[in-house]
Amino acid sequence: MDGSRGHRLKSLFDPQSIAVIGASNTKLKWGYIVPANIIVGGYKGEVYPVNPHEDEILGRRVYKSIADVPEAVDLAVVTLPSKSVPEVIADCARRGVRNCIVISGGFSETGSEGAALERRISGISRDSGMRIVGPNTMGIYSAPSSLHALMPPVRPIHGSIGFAAQSGNLGTQMLSLGKALGVGFSRFVCIGNEADLNCGDYLEFFEEDPATRVVLLYLEGLREARRFARIAQRTSPTKPIVVMKAGKTEAGAKAARSHSAALAGDDSIFEGIIRQYGMVEADDTEAMLDIAKAFAVLPLPRGRRVGVLTWGGGWGVVTADALARHKLELADFPEETLSELDSILPPYWSKGNPVDLVGTLDLSMHLACVKIIARCPCVDAVLTLGTMGAISSMQSFVLEGTYFDDMGEEEGQKAEVIAQELLNKLADLDQEYRDEVIGLIKETGKPIIAVSLPTAGSTSPVLAKQSEVAIYPSPERGVKTLSALYDYRLFLERTRGDA
Amino acid sequence: MDGSRGHRLKSLFDPQSIAVIGASNTKLKWGYIVPANIIVGGYKGEVYPVNPHEDEILGRRVYKSIADVPEAVDLAVVTLPSKSVPEVIADCARRGVRNCIVISGGFSETGSEGAALERRISGISRDSGMRIVGPNTMGIYSAPSSLHALMPPVRPIHGSIGFAAQSGNLGTQMLSLGKALGVGFSRFVCIGNEADLNCGDYLEFFEEDPATRVVLLYLEGLREARRFARIAQRTSPTKPIVVMKAGKTEAGAKAARSHSAALAGDDSIFEGIIRQYGMVEADDTEAMLDIAKAFAVLPLPRGRRVGVLTWGGGWGVVTADALARHKLELADFPEETLSELDSILPPYWSKGNPVDLVGTLDLSMHLACVKIIARCPCVDAVLTLGTMGAISSMQSFVLEGTYFDDMGEEEGQKAEVIAQELLNKLADLDQEYRDEVIGLIKETGKPIIAVSLPTAGSTSPVLAKQSEVAIYPSPERGVKTLSALYDYRLFLERTRGDA
Repeated sequence: MDGSRGHRLKSLFDPQSIAVIGASNTKLKWGYIVPANIIVGGYKGEVYPVNPHEDEILGRRVYKSIADVPEAVDLAVVTLPSKSVPEVIADCARRGVRNCIVISGGFSETGSEGAALERRISGISRDSGMRIVGPNTMGIYSAPSSLHALMPPVRPIHGSIGFAAQSGNLGTQMLSLGKALGVGFSRFVCIGNEADLNCGDYLEFFEEDPATRVVLLYLEGLREARRFARIAQRTSPTKPIVVMKAGKTEAGAKAARSHSAALAGDDSIFEGIIRQYGMVEADDTEAMLDIAKAFAVLPLPRGRRVGVLTWGGGWGVVTADALARHKLELADFPEETLSELDSILPPYWSKGNPVDLVGTLDLSMHLACVKIIARCPCVDAVLTLGTMGAISSMQSFVLEGTYFDDMGEEEGQKAEVIAQELLNKLADLDQEYRDEVIGLIKETGKPIIAVSLPTAGSTSPVLAKQSEVAIYPSPERGVKTLSALYDYRLFLERTRGDA
Repeated sequence: MDGSRGHRLKSLFDPQSIAVIGASNTKLKWGYIVPANIIVGGYKGEVYPVNPHEDEILGRRVYKSIADVPEAVDLAVVTLPSKSVPEVIADCARRGVRNCIVISGGFSETGSEGAALERRISGISRDSGMRIVGPNTMGIYSAPSSLHALMPPVRPIHGSIGFAAQSGNLGTQMLSLGKALGVGFSRFVCIGNEADLNCGDYLEFFEEDPATRVVLLYLEGLREARRFARIAQRTSPTKPIVVMKAGKTEAGAKAARSHSAALAGDDSIFEGIIRQYGMVEADDTEAMLDIAKAFAVLPLPRGRRVGVLTWGGGWGVVTADALARHKLELADFPEETLSELDSILPPYWSKGNPVDLVGTLDLSMHLACVKIIARCPCVDAVLTLGTMGAISSMQSFVLEGTYFDDMGEEEGQKAEVIAQELLNKLADLDQEYRDEVIGLIKETGKPIIAVSLPTAGSTSPVLAKQSEVAIYPSPERGVKTLSALYDYRLFLERTRGDA
């Protein structure tokens, strides 16, 4: 595999040393911000600022040119204006630099003059074998190296999703959103203008990258579409590829053409390969992270029979509708499962699936129910609504502090103590529920998806902890995600026959 | 209008006095929690606890029976076990109580015995004219009276959305979600088993209620469907009715039947009336609040031409796709608008719609652009992506505090001061942007919708302030919402001819 283009990108994503060409002491310049992101982000290799007019930048000795850097450089990050880039790139190639990230804009996205500059870069890359990201890129992120060679100061959660995006803003903002939602990434690259490396190369790298278990792509257009298709076909059976294809409408394609050097015309190929090769399409930007996250943390359902635990009948109805719309089924519980549930639930429970807990506050009962449902042989997947994260709604209520305002002082203080004790108890139970769910997933090999509405004021403490579990903000999004997992499972069965 | 059933519900939603029958000093009983919610929630009328065995509850004198309460009672809230409810209800009717909320479950939702009890309640209501909410209801909320006669301790944002839900959990959790998302309500009722008042009655009340400008319904089944249809037909031209109909699939309908006494069989009627009468369908639970919120704070677009301001090309492409899928259009800017934008934007801007700000940090430029776009005569609505709420992502980054860790102490402190100043400046600009957008909406009569991704740690300060603006967490949800506004506008044009 060593000869494949993808594998050789290891020195790009896990470089031993980095030169920043165009490094600066001016705090509002990318030449300051990008190396600051790298250093502050925890990168452990050498960082060599290059600038003919400075002696020290960010506490590092500065070199006049890349030729002066004393040691081999795996990665050069270039932030200079576009006109000086080809020359600098040529210097890098001569110095034996293995990879360059050209942050600078002002290339083919701006017109014919920029396109000519970009062709020169492509030529240098072709002739020297030095690989180039961009130009017109916001950079890369790599969890195994704690490398944040990025324009915005994003600090993603470490995880197993490899993400390549043909939009820097959308891509880096998705990393931030992931942080808010507990979704972690192994690698990220803002693809840029593809003067050299293109989407297929990054996919090929993800294919062979042990840190990446799930691939996420945001695409507007494909260069070398047939090669991309071959790599996707090869990758899909071992790693799910979640893809959002923008620019599918005429208006969208037009906007894509004006936004970047992205190429239209390959859409028919794209449409053809996506299902054929088992890629999982995200049909909106929220689905991108919803689905990628699920693949990262959950096993695939072996069938379409879903057990639903709900804290109120209405949510059960909404969930049943969503399941039916995604060709999933409410599992038919056998007599044994029903009587197990009957033995622990109050007499007025729903006596079937969805299992309605009817407002029971006792989380240990929720836990007992989710165990019975997950272990039921007629259940392939579980949706648990409202329990996980329930603590946050109570927290926000108590933390608001208004509940006790009208009580006498003594009574109010007593009530606050009781409330705080209750909260602590609930927080413990919430954590216990979370841990038990993770254990149950391992034990049963079945996906368990939680749904918990966002609440005011206290989303983050809950969400920060959720990177090991999949929690969705509505039953519909949970079901849509489960359906994507099942579709991929069906693809695997078709291609590998491992039912 | 005084004779209509709806109008008479004013004494239910704005009662002068409330008796709680089954009031209790036991803190985990609904007989304690519900009156505590009422009192702590700020209700200003009289509250009379009724319990034959207590002297004082929640600091109020307790009455042995409803007959002993010294003054007229507009509303009785009943939390007693179902078996004793008919007798108590009969007492209330004799005492001249105008409305009862029967919180208690154990009626038709539990089987034939409960159904018999419920028929007795219906009969008492019919004979006496006393109106009954429920049984098996989580209660009501009413902003004008600060009345929280609810089982869960929800404290919604005051607003102009009147909400009736055939599910207590879903309904009250939507109130909480509204609080997290900045969506305010005028009234809420958990419809329950409809022994007397049904969905049509609440719709009729909302129709005539000056506090309610938008109606939101969560429905599983319709009683008196034809009457409901007549009221909807009458209401739609003056107040938008946003409706989520659950139980539309076979699986969902089955879950609905087991969940409540809700009635199936009327779905064909429902399907027929929803579009004919201009009701706005929410196709998932997230859309319920997304759309209701927009109707509450935004004017309707006069056409389908949308101006888009974006902070990165990818979001523009995604938005263009979403617009096309909802039969909306990217506005074609006239020469004048283009040159106005040209005069303030950097030379490499997108030169068309979407207007790509390409990462410009200067919010005053965003503001200038949104003004030019909103005032353009060829624009019917504006989507502004990434600007409003942008501060929160920077906040969360700086508040994390890791950015300065690797700097020397002095340097780090200086940088933190600069960062804090930058944040304060940005917070001011964010507020200014928000205020200017509200002003622009008033000035132009055009809807301006903001999109801002949620960020870790700092959603609430931004969201709490957003009840006057409509901010959505993805462009797709913003566009879907705009499309709902436009569909309603088209309905109004068809029915009223006021183009």
